Amino acid sequence: MKDDILYHFALGTGTHDFPALFGDVKFVCVGGSPSRMKAFITYIAEELGLGSVGADYPNICAGTDRYAMYKVGPVLSVSHGMGIPSIAIMLHELIKLLYHSKCSNVTIIRIGTSGGIGLEPGSVVITSQSVDATFKPQFEQVILGKTVIRSTNLDDQLAKELMQCSKEINEFNTVIGNTMCTLDFYEGQARLDGAICLYVEEEKLQYLKAAYDAGVRNIEMESSVFAALCNLSGVRAAVVCVTLLNRLEGDQISSSHDVLVEYQQRPQKLVGHFIKKCLGKV
Amino acid sequence: MKDDILYHFALGTGTHDFPALFGDVKFVCVGGSPSRMKAFITYIAEELGLGSVGADYPNICAGTDRYAMYKVGPVLSVSHGMGIPSIAIMLHELIKLLYHSKCSNVTIIRIGTSGGIGLEPGSVVITSQSVDATFKPQFEQVILGKTVIRSTNLDDQLAKELMQCSKEINEFNTVIGNTMCTLDFYEGQARLDGAICLYVEEEKLQYLKAAYDAGVRNIEMESSVFAALCNLSGVRAAVVCVTLLNRLEGDQISSSHDVLVEYQQRPQKLVGHFIKKCLGKV
Repeated sequence: MKDDILYHFALGTGTHDFPALFGDVKFVCVGGSPSRMKAFITYIAEELGLGSVGADYPNICAGTDRYAMYKVGPVLSVSHGMGIPSIAIMLHELIKLLYHSKCSNVTIIRIGTSGGIGLEPGSVVITSQSVDATFKPQFEQVILGKTVIRSTNLDDQLAKELMQCSKEINEFNTVIGNTMCTLDFYEGQARLDGAICLYVEEEKLQYLKAAYDAGVRNIEMESSVFAALCNLSGVRAAVVCVTLLNRLEGDQISSSHDVLVEYQQRPQKLVGHFIKKCLGKV
Repeated sequence: MKDDILYHFALGTGTHDFPALFGDVKFVCVGGSPSRMKAFITYIAEELGLGSVGADYPNICAGTDRYAMYKVGPVLSVSHGMGIPSIAIMLHELIKLLYHSKCSNVTIIRIGTSGGIGLEPGSVVITSQSVDATFKPQFEQVILGKTVIRSTNLDDQLAKELMQCSKEINEFNTVIGNTMCTLDFYEGQARLDGAICLYVEEEKLQYLKAAYDAGVRNIEMESSVFAALCNLSGVRAAVVCVTLLNRLEGDQISSSHDVLVEYQQRPQKLVGHFIKKCLGKV
């Protein structure tokens, strides 16, 4: 291809100098919400001593509202919206961006939110394996109308390093566990409070307990394709999500705004500490 | 349930008076991009003579950045992000919102963008049936780990009324055809320009031509669950998407920004005309 247009980033090799813009990137942090990813770049800039106080970081993808992207030093922060299709589009374009920019030794970490199973709300889960709705560590990708099964393995060593960081911070409960990745938030996660619900509470609890027994400690909607695409691209990857509620006790996210905001900072703190440590700044 | 928190809208029955806020809603228009849905509310307000020139419409979901929502008179405009999981979350909460608001006789129309097959770019497709990647008119929903097949029928009469509106406007090519709904933009739509691609151009074209032969005229990523959930809820629904390119001729969306902006206004114009007609304002 002569030029490559990364349509959903509103960036292109014909219009942007990728090696100059992104060549020094070593850490990419991704998360669903654009405002959370903006908050993360401000936080990490301060932690790394790279930003001035009150600095505003421009959105590199200002030409579109599909995703938001921010950068400071070797850290790129990108939003991915909700669900497998949304993060998959972002990852295809991100992997191409890193390739065109001639980046090397990049680590990609998803910092997200999730529903916990059998954990105190606010606990952080570092994903050991991303499993599907039948608890299998696989991702089904449909290509030319045929289903292809892909591995959802993540980097064991990286998960252990992140766990060690949580011990060093010692501010919140963190576990390594399996993460169930679903295509739906309501029926797909056995919630009783969707617009449609054709099962009862007993069936819900039976399903969630079976998930727990299969090693699942949290449920979210992006980790499987994230693991699969990072695997195929040979990029070191991890998933670090905070749990906003314990699904064995309810379906609605009813904690106060302030409590939820503090929970959402936990994966940022953990990954911020990890990046500082990698850069010899701890 | 005592209170119902629509978490991804940042609205709740305990904090908001739903019948007062939304009780008069008769038309809900949904689309991926928040800025496009804001542009639509401004457009429809002017068309219906309900807004003052230069009026700014506040985002009803300002407490979150997951979705954006705008309202003028009987028209609600809501963004849904990209992909089946993202629009499914929005639809569950939208259907609950309409229920709690005691709305009746509501029509929901998705106004979106898509890739065309065998159509001149800029053509508009009114969906006859939403089909999956094997061209079947069905949506697979995983519930408690088991796959449930749901119908993706849309309202035939509504599609015909919308087609008639396009004839009355007479500004752009519009067809009624099948819409293929995929879980992925790159491999899932047989693109050759993703970060990963394990097939060749000949296989791609074979697949897209088979889709064309099955009546598919455009490809997008939300229509199947949209049709399924509207069906189950008994809401009259339609999908109206503009095609940004002809996939038989390429994969990249390389038209100029201005051309793409004009294309994206076409479903808005068509649906705007339809709403005016329903309200006796044409």
